[in-house]
Amino acid sequence: MTYELYYWDGIPGRGEFVRLVLEEAAAPYREMGKGEAGTREIMSHLGDDAGPYAPFAPPFLKDGQVIISHVANILDYLGTRHGLAPAGEQDRLFARGLQLTLTDFVTEAHDTHHPLGIDDYYEDQKPEAKKRSKAFIEHRILKFLGYFERVIVGNPSRSGYLVGDGLTTVDLSLFHVVNGLRYAFPNATADFDDRYPKIMALRKKIGLRPNIAAYLASSRRLDFNEADVFRHYPELDQDPA
Amino acid sequence: MTYELYYWDGIPGRGEFVRLVLEEAAAPYREMGKGEAGTREIMSHLGDDAGPYAPFAPPFLKDGQVIISHVANILDYLGTRHGLAPAGEQDRLFARGLQLTLTDFVTEAHDTHHPLGIDDYYEDQKPEAKKRSKAFIEHRILKFLGYFERVIVGNPSRSGYLVGDGLTTVDLSLFHVVNGLRYAFPNATADFDDRYPKIMALRKKIGLRPNIAAYLASSRRLDFNEADVFRHYPELDQDPA
Repeated sequence: MTYELYYWDGIPGRGEFVRLVLEEAAAPYREMGKGEAGTREIMSHLGDDAGPYAPFAPPFLKDGQVIISHVANILDYLGTRHGLAPAGEQDRLFARGLQLTLTDFVTEAHDTHHPLGIDDYYEDQKPEAKKRSKAFIEHRILKFLGYFERVIVGNPSRSGYLVGDGLTTVDLSLFHVVNGLRYAFPNATADFDDRYPKIMALRKKIGLRPNIAAYLASSRRLDFNEADVFRHYPELDQDPA
Repeated sequence: MTYELYYWDGIPGRGEFVRLVLEEAAAPYREMGKGEAGTREIMSHLGDDAGPYAPFAPPFLKDGQVIISHVANILDYLGTRHGLAPAGEQDRLFARGLQLTLTDFVTEAHDTHHPLGIDDYYEDQKPEAKKRSKAFIEHRILKFLGYFERVIVGNPSRSGYLVGDGLTTVDLSLFHVVNGLRYAFPNATADFDDRYPKIMALRKKIGLRPNIAAYLASSRRLDFNEADVFRHYPELDQDPA
């Protein structure tokens, strides 16, 4: 069965968390959101006439007739099916909690450039975005990544992964979040190697996995850009906290 | 087995989503976060020395030795065990997606009074909070609640619930979100009965359920207040959109 991935064209966005899992798993999938036809296809699933089980927003995934929305929900579904979920109840519940912590972190990363809401342009909220970015860099990155660093250190299996003794979907998501932060805030993140050695070692290891490396080098991989969650606006960057 | 609920004292907060499920299910639970000793108890699970499976933040729940964090994760766990999760894979996946949409909605409701970040006081971001609240009222409430109204209307079982033919944890969470919005923005939400008749009928029905009604009348139920997610600052309210 070929999965159908519905996500806005032109940005990695939140769809990227799903792509990384599909690519690592070598699961066949089709991008449904490409071009204007793709946008119309997505919209047909969201509007008043979308029928039952309509998602609130992309990304969503179809597996045959089954439709699944929200990154954490999709990754839970895929992880279980493709050997990228931990074994054991406590590990599985913990991984789900970590994924939801990453969800919150991504929302906060997005809000650095849209603190007053997404219905106004960045250009109309630049002073506020600067304040929010400062707080994000000086407090929130430290809090979130400090936590994830401790989780790797404290993993009873000492595997270098977040949960259990092998790669899970949460590791892949953390990989993307760190890449996004490095793109958005190159100065503020310049000391990550020193500050978060376990996270950065995990990031390096994931980038070398054959399926991930092949994906990153392929045309399927979209570049970060300023229509995305992680945006590089030099005026929002600053020195490390 | 008595569940242990860890949440900050004095506010309904995100702990309330968990409490409503425990109360509806008549599941025995103990509040672990009461008083100064409770705060210390919570902190001991969060710090550098918390050991494996440490949550990022409250609420979290302990079921014997198992620890579960994040509202959506906890509700999934409890719903399955107490007859408050839908039957059938598509319904279950859809309910999980709805819960995560509510998670996002709650974050946005919180950000109306803290658009520049949670490390500064509301008093230091009042003009920005006014702008964010305006956008929230004029765009986001409509988008989220319009969606949930359509979900109830489009539920194939026509049960008046969000998913399937009976009450699930997502209904209880929507109940609390609507109550929170009514508390925070009494003017902006004054037309909810006309605008969202299905949601408001569901809210009324839930409030009449014996276990919920008994809980709401009990001393276990904490009042909304201005240290919480949903805060009533009259200056942030406005007429309906």
